[in-house]
Amino acid sequence: MKCSPLFWPIQFKNGVIYVLDETLLPQKLTYIKAKNYQEACNAIRQMKTRAVGQVLLVMYTFLLLIKQGKQKDLAKVAQAINATRPTLSFKFLTDMVLGWAESNAPLEKCILGFLEGLKFSRVKQAEEASKLIKDGDCILTHCNVSGLMPLIGEFCRKQGKKVSFFATETRPYMQGARLTAWELKRGGFNVTLITDGMIAAVMSSGKVNKVIVGADHLAQNGDIANKIGTYGIAVLARHFNLPFYVLCPPASGLKSGKDIKIEIRPDKEMLEYQGLRLAPKGVKGYYPAFDVTPNNLITKHVYMEIKR
Amino acid sequence: MKCSPLFWPIQFKNGVIYVLDETLLPQKLTYIKAKNYQEACNAIRQMKTRAVGQVLLVMYTFLLLIKQGKQKDLAKVAQAINATRPTLSFKFLTDMVLGWAESNAPLEKCILGFLEGLKFSRVKQAEEASKLIKDGDCILTHCNVSGLMPLIGEFCRKQGKKVSFFATETRPYMQGARLTAWELKRGGFNVTLITDGMIAAVMSSGKVNKVIVGADHLAQNGDIANKIGTYGIAVLARHFNLPFYVLCPPASGLKSGKDIKIEIRPDKEMLEYQGLRLAPKGVKGYYPAFDVTPNNLITKHVYMEIKR
Repeated sequence: MKCSPLFWPIQFKNGVIYVLDETLLPQKLTYIKAKNYQEACNAIRQMKTRAVGQVLLVMYTFLLLIKQGKQKDLAKVAQAINATRPTLSFKFLTDMVLGWAESNAPLEKCILGFLEGLKFSRVKQAEEASKLIKDGDCILTHCNVSGLMPLIGEFCRKQGKKVSFFATETRPYMQGARLTAWELKRGGFNVTLITDGMIAAVMSSGKVNKVIVGADHLAQNGDIANKIGTYGIAVLARHFNLPFYVLCPPASGLKSGKDIKIEIRPDKEMLEYQGLRLAPKGVKGYYPAFDVTPNNLITKHVYMEIKR
Repeated sequence: MKCSPLFWPIQFKNGVIYVLDETLLPQKLTYIKAKNYQEACNAIRQMKTRAVGQVLLVMYTFLLLIKQGKQKDLAKVAQAINATRPTLSFKFLTDMVLGWAESNAPLEKCILGFLEGLKFSRVKQAEEASKLIKDGDCILTHCNVSGLMPLIGEFCRKQGKKVSFFATETRPYMQGARLTAWELKRGGFNVTLITDGMIAAVMSSGKVNKVIVGADHLAQNGDIANKIGTYGIAVLARHFNLPFYVLCPPASGLKSGKDIKIEIRPDKEMLEYQGLRLAPKGVKGYYPAFDVTPNNLITKHVYMEIKR
């Protein structure tokens, strides 16, 4: 099945990790190289890759380490990875790798097997989500779910169902405009872009009839953390009586959304855009990168099964 | 009392109308000239001025006409003005002027008297709104209310109450960033900018405890039309149990919000920002300039009394 470059944005070739630089999309489809764990951590910190790309990058970083014969550095690298971004739960990944190492499992095989399983699970997740869509539906989505949205569309096509999309532009990083609208259009789907303030207008006028978003974090009680703006969309979906579906990562060990630490990013990232100043000098901004949507606003979680 | 340049953004001097070009704020504080009604209508159509600035511009355009001795063109000019933007109710203004002319009232005096009354009413409206604010409140506002927000702050100061503000940036035109944050900071107030998707996050975390917005249109039943995004904020305010106050213009003749025609603007205006392309080529956008907030979501209308 046809896939978006965002579905598997990290590649590993000849001892080098290639990271799709999502900050340059859609103007440039460029991969940056990471030749050691520090460069990989930098790519995460600078948000060159996001979401599933970060999971892949973490795993490929360990693979790189093994190929370089630096297995003794596993714990140090795990620690460096865990410290990159507070909201994301890389710990379940790094713990998994450390666990394999401790039990003397064949590390390279385990990592490659995990990545194969992940690919299978993601395709399966898109297929499950496609079953929630009826012929003629128009789906509102927010931010970007790493290639899953066009894949859901592909499954709908296969099932003979027509589906169209509205994508929020998703300020301040514009992942909805730069990534989601781009990959959906590239996949031949009917996609319309709106600003983040237009959601109530398109919901109340019946232009969209379902919401599907991703999640960066799933807590044990079903609360999710996702790109800032998701919580508001969930409240609006409830108000306008629209189903709100979430494509979830595997659950973390955290009990509830209250336990998820929300990353506050530098306000410069919202006060400027690609070097263009958007706000007057001296005005301060507040930029929480994620918000937490409580379980009770979620119509259905589309879970992901990961083989460990 | 100290006033923002946005409080009275149109001036009339020596037979020329000076229009504060709000699209260039905050980088440049520039006035463009309008020497005839066509140039004035263009300034409205290109959104060089907004909200109360448009009301002033309409009235000064008639004043200009009279000063030029072209009173016979009154009806033609009224028609041209009414055709500039569908959502705004200029008709009550142009009808008023035509009414004065028909009854042989001293037109220049009537217009100048109306403008004096308007100024008085706006100051009064800010004072009324300030009474809704308690010491220590943090107000969320959206878009720009033409200098009323800093004026409300000034009244709070006078009353010995501390107040701070959160302003949404208000995509796609960024009036919140460019105008509201600018004029509030200029007035010495504590203002924090957020993107339009951060509203649920700041409401749920208690960072703001009241909402005050303006309105471009007030229908007879209390429904309002305001800058796109307002409806969503009202729904969120209700969900988080925060009061939602609206600074209203005089009511139009329309029965309810359903009768307000919403202007759909060219999607180019949201797909580009100051010449910078924000979305991939070929992706389409949907840009309703306003949305309608139903009366039942409004805690209190702060009305405006206009002496006619």
